[in-house]
Amino acid sequence: MTGPGGEIARLAELLARLPGLGPRSARRIVLHLLARRDTAMVPLAEALAAAAAVVRPCRVCGNLDTADPCTICADPAREAGTICVVEQVSDLWAIERSRAFRGHYHVLGGTLSALGGTGPDELRIPQLLARAREPAIAEVILALNATVDGQTTAHYLAERLAGLDRPAGGLSVTRLAHGVPLGGELDYLDDGTLTAALRARRAL
Amino acid sequence: MTGPGGEIARLAELLARLPGLGPRSARRIVLHLLARRDTAMVPLAEALAAAAAVVRPCRVCGNLDTADPCTICADPAREAGTICVVEQVSDLWAIERSRAFRGHYHVLGGTLSALGGTGPDELRIPQLLARAREPAIAEVILALNATVDGQTTAHYLAERLAGLDRPAGGLSVTRLAHGVPLGGELDYLDDGTLTAALRARRAL
Repeated sequence: MTGPGGEIARLAELLARLPGLGPRSARRIVLHLLARRDTAMVPLAEALAAAAAVVRPCRVCGNLDTADPCTICADPAREAGTICVVEQVSDLWAIERSRAFRGHYHVLGGTLSALGGTGPDELRIPQLLARAREPAIAEVILALNATVDGQTTAHYLAERLAGLDRPAGGLSVTRLAHGVPLGGELDYLDDGTLTAALRARRAL
Repeated sequence: MTGPGGEIARLAELLARLPGLGPRSARRIVLHLLARRDTAMVPLAEALAAAAAVVRPCRVCGNLDTADPCTICADPAREAGTICVVEQVSDLWAIERSRAFRGHYHVLGGTLSALGGTGPDELRIPQLLARAREPAIAEVILALNATVDGQTTAHYLAERLAGLDRPAGGLSVTRLAHGVPLGGELDYLDDGTLTAALRARRAL
């Protein structure tokens, strides 16, 4: 029991299931909200209902947006010839926040995993191959996580993309650079990253 | 910008203002919810709206509940002669979870604070004194936090309660015991707690 009222208990229970929250932080949020009914609680209920009603996955790239195709796919100012492949929508958002990429995206929805039983058809890989078959596509950037599953998936995708039967060849498949993160101290870096950074060293 | 859609950005912004959450955890929660629209997002929106509509402070004790007077004040099985004074509703919930108390409560809504400009009339102190004046009340337990502000408030309340003009005297005013918390290691305890625990030692 978190509180006497059924509505309070129900709300705390739903909040406690959210990622990063538990029973204690959920109770704290419930009290915070109940003390700010009109300025925080009602607006949050409305924002949740509004987003649930209008946000859906883009049928082209898998991004979550109120428009379908999404704002990025529909934007004529973005380079349609480059597709950046990411695991999750959160990765797409991270790249968008960097403002370093002006092409299109493709959200896989996860990584291949033999243990988890995730094969190519559970991810949006067939859709990616169909998009990459278009002659207008010049480059596919594999921006997957530098984890074992992410890199396994990237290798699989690189092979499938290299074997594509494209009307006019010349599809370049790239990946993000590995190296020392900005602000990173060498002493705290793992050996793999240091090795990668040394091998990919650049002339000054 | 957290995501392309205005509804997504608005939702992430409202979530990021909740205690314990920031922009990053708010984005994570938004994606979690959008991926579980029917099982998590819509139920949460409904639970928030329902709680906002029906939960209000109890006019007797200040507890938050769907009933007024609240379930605790209205429960005939609870001892009406004992009032446990707490700072916040979260403290009331904590004591209820312990199942160690079967009396009534009084939520002050905070502590006295000269710096913060919180005087007795900003808290629910006049209401407490009015309740304690009733001859049926035999004990007031001051379950305030063991902080400077909490203890200052407890001392103030003890004096005011002792000076009450009660029809039939004999109101006992108590506080929670101080000592070593269960599972606590002496080496990690502060000197004040150790001193209190030694002074209040008990025969085995």
